Amino acid sequence: MRTAFYVSDGTAITAEVFGHALLTMFPAQFEHITLPFIENIEAATQVIQRINDCYKTTGLRPLVFHTFVDEALRLLISQSDGICYDFLNAFVEPLQKELGMAPVPKTHRTHSMHEKTYDFRIDAVNYALANDDGANMKNFNQADIILVGVSRSGKTPTSLYLALQYGIKAANYPFVEEDMSELKLPPELKKHQAKLFGLTITAERLSQIREQRRPNSRYASVKQCALELKEVELLYQREQIPYINSTQLSIEEISAKIISRTGLKRQKY
Amino acid sequence: MRTAFYVSDGTAITAEVFGHALLTMFPAQFEHITLPFIENIEAATQVIQRINDCYKTTGLRPLVFHTFVDEALRLLISQSDGICYDFLNAFVEPLQKELGMAPVPKTHRTHSMHEKTYDFRIDAVNYALANDDGANMKNFNQADIILVGVSRSGKTPTSLYLALQYGIKAANYPFVEEDMSELKLPPELKKHQAKLFGLTITAERLSQIREQRRPNSRYASVKQCALELKEVELLYQREQIPYINSTQLSIEEISAKIISRTGLKRQKY
Repeated sequence: MRTAFYVSDGTAITAEVFGHALLTMFPAQFEHITLPFIENIEAATQVIQRINDCYKTTGLRPLVFHTFVDEALRLLISQSDGICYDFLNAFVEPLQKELGMAPVPKTHRTHSMHEKTYDFRIDAVNYALANDDGANMKNFNQADIILVGVSRSGKTPTSLYLALQYGIKAANYPFVEEDMSELKLPPELKKHQAKLFGLTITAERLSQIREQRRPNSRYASVKQCALELKEVELLYQREQIPYINSTQLSIEEISAKIISRTGLKRQKY
Repeated sequence: MRTAFYVSDGTAITAEVFGHALLTMFPAQFEHITLPFIENIEAATQVIQRINDCYKTTGLRPLVFHTFVDEALRLLISQSDGICYDFLNAFVEPLQKELGMAPVPKTHRTHSMHEKTYDFRIDAVNYALANDDGANMKNFNQADIILVGVSRSGKTPTSLYLALQYGIKAANYPFVEEDMSELKLPPELKKHQAKLFGLTITAERLSQIREQRRPNSRYASVKQCALELKEVELLYQREQIPYINSTQLSIEEISAKIISRTGLKRQKY
């Protein structure tokens, strides 16, 4: 199996995203190794040794996705036996021409702490935690968005992702079984109707997820799941609440779709 | 101000990471616009219109960072008045040669749902929530890592980021004021000592953060913060618990450093 190294003088998150986006284009499996915070010649020399050893052991030249801000370290890594893919370097020159200014490389700028953005995110995480699962409905006026849906439809992970990734304050509210006979919006939600966004999912998938929590329960039965989902989807339609079906979607996709559909303002880029 | 567009037939997260990494090399401010899920010619035509309008209004050619898997849409966007930076296309050919196989483009593969990885992440998020702030210490045997530190030192956001981004199960445990007179590891932590990882922070920054929670309290005073931090750092040293100072670090950096220092196995790449 071919090995892919992700190497950087920062977190290597950018190198990973870049390499991963490329490798997923190919129908093959790879061994992944991330080596972050390679900040001096000693560390870089060890990385080269590791790449070269990998080549010797496997007979396949490792793929090396790297993003160095430090020019000397970048050049050093390029001398390894790996095949280096260096997108920063490839694109900086054309961008420099277009912008008419020289780059000012600075380590740890991409995924580092910008005080203002940071506080937004921590605030948003604290908000999501304090307003998970219908707790503190009096705080809904501070919410950027309120996710609604049946139990286990993906509200909590999505709220947390919106907070951590984008600094968006997301509350969430579950419609529970007791509400189902005549489902309507509670007054606290009605008051903030413009902030509501619904999640739904197929009954089969929901049942699978609930089975892990309470095996062989009525709660987890496909029949009960289907009943709850039908009521909730009718409510979304009746109240014109935008909603998406999360069955085939990752947390990233759900979050990106919500932002795209609502035009929510992100605190972080 | 120059406008940067991030456009994709998927979430556009890769385009954002790619563009952001490049733009942060330059000492300038940009207007950011993300346009995800551009999945048909109609949507792409609207994007082109928006890019061209932006050029007309600002007199500056917009920068367009795009990652299309669909070839026809990719070519269409390339005909806009923006300057297009297309790293997928630039690197696919050399990678294809090296791997000796043709790419099999498939939309929504990069940030989409791989059932197994997905379950790991949701499990890890649920674990982090259930084991936040010292709750359920009997679950520590399931933890991949247990973050320890004083109140508000960054344990909770880090636990959630490790869960969402990497599928790592992180519990966390706070050392509170009452413990400080003779601080030692509680038996439940002692039992899992190999899993402990400490966070620390400067007293000044901790005091700022606590002030937002309880203004003008003893809890938030620099003196109290300094006292707690001193005790906790002595404990880390005495018990040989690895630790990092999070003051200057983003959640991404803290998490990447923890993984790098501990060799924790990630469930997701």
